[in-house]
Amino acid sequence: MSPSRSQGKLYIVGIGPGGTEHLTKKAEKVLLSSEYVIGNGTYLDQIAIVIKGAKVIRSGMGGEIERAKKAVELSHDHVVSIVSGGDANVYGMAGIVLEVAQKEGDIDIEIIPGVTAVSAAASLLGAPIVNDFAVISLSDLLTPMDVIEKRFNSAAEADFVIAVYNPKSRNRKENFGRAIEIIKKYRNNDTPVGVVKSATREGETVIVTTLGKIIEYNDIIDMSTLVLIGNSESRLWNNRIITPRGYQRKYEY
Amino acid sequence: MSPSRSQGKLYIVGIGPGGTEHLTKKAEKVLLSSEYVIGNGTYLDQIAIVIKGAKVIRSGMGGEIERAKKAVELSHDHVVSIVSGGDANVYGMAGIVLEVAQKEGDIDIEIIPGVTAVSAAASLLGAPIVNDFAVISLSDLLTPMDVIEKRFNSAAEADFVIAVYNPKSRNRKENFGRAIEIIKKYRNNDTPVGVVKSATREGETVIVTTLGKIIEYNDIIDMSTLVLIGNSESRLWNNRIITPRGYQRKYEY
Repeated sequence: MSPSRSQGKLYIVGIGPGGTEHLTKKAEKVLLSSEYVIGNGTYLDQIAIVIKGAKVIRSGMGGEIERAKKAVELSHDHVVSIVSGGDANVYGMAGIVLEVAQKEGDIDIEIIPGVTAVSAAASLLGAPIVNDFAVISLSDLLTPMDVIEKRFNSAAEADFVIAVYNPKSRNRKENFGRAIEIIKKYRNNDTPVGVVKSATREGETVIVTTLGKIIEYNDIIDMSTLVLIGNSESRLWNNRIITPRGYQRKYEY
Repeated sequence: MSPSRSQGKLYIVGIGPGGTEHLTKKAEKVLLSSEYVIGNGTYLDQIAIVIKGAKVIRSGMGGEIERAKKAVELSHDHVVSIVSGGDANVYGMAGIVLEVAQKEGDIDIEIIPGVTAVSAAASLLGAPIVNDFAVISLSDLLTPMDVIEKRFNSAAEADFVIAVYNPKSRNRKENFGRAIEIIKKYRNNDTPVGVVKSATREGETVIVTTLGKIIEYNDIIDMSTLVLIGNSESRLWNNRIITPRGYQRKYEY
């Protein structure tokens, strides 16, 4: 911290997939020490017990820029945490907060990583992402759909396991079907697919299916769902997905 | 748990990037409740304070199959944790443990997700992975090098942020340079690149550089290093990397 800075500090905190049990000890400590905690209401509710001593500023989904500005402003003079579901980086608040900080003057910022939604979903599905994987959001609000489609093509062709964030929203129901059609150009219908809704939260739903049958579950999929598509070596076992790391190519066991 | 099963249980626990502060509360609870804790010595040392009441079985790096077999065997009758650095899925132990369990009979398995090395590295670099990203390991011990090269080509061409795990080992020093040459076919020399060694552990080193200059740091890069390569929109600010999420395409701020 430079000597000209005030005593303020801004933490950008990844709170993990839900509840408080997947919060890291560092994230908990930082939240407990914060004067202000800012975030989307859904995430704040998940950690209500940890932030009950702080001044809490709730905001709606979609108000990320205003939220980031408020956090930067307050952190000139106060210890502030702005929370992000999952990790602070992965489609999280670290980006917009640093973008705002770059425009509004340097402040003391520390980013606290968290358990991502993809790790949480994978843990419920077994071992789907033990090899190289690609993470793609299907939200075309901030990324053009042609860029997203190119990424699905490339990731499917190069045999990455694919984690799909934001597969659907109320106003955007078609993109998911298009992504599945792209992947089918490169992978068999029996490729394992996992669908995890509200991982480690109330209403948690875990479905293990295949690329050929995933569209049957189309109505279940929403913004709180993560879809994991196996690679060419992934297999089903006991309602779980295993993507081998490659030991079978070198060893007998 | 099926009624025929014994009282044993196997937890596959992602312990996060290092130390105990990035351990989740759930991981800590599970480790504290385990009779046996099995893992690579380096990881066990990181959580020594949490596992001092357990019977600890240390194994060397590379002994994953034996370690998985031992864990599965013990968990027929005991509560066992097998630990994985970072997350249990991402190049972690979940894969080989389920592969062994599939062969050696079903046991009661629960996977506890953790903070990945890529989230830890990203938090130290700023906001490099706020958009779609690909995770690729450069270890060709278990994946053929031509598959790895194809993945670098595809990920670079489709403008994914790229996280490189296992960029180098004692017997494999050339792959990293080859990967960088592939990426340079698609991205400018001024593309931001972050190098993070031993994130959140003793000896932590963070370097922010560019694609044109990364090879100057070649000697620093080893197995405990993670390299993050920005996409076409990533930029440098204050020795940090920001990959914009795309708000600038829709909003003024």
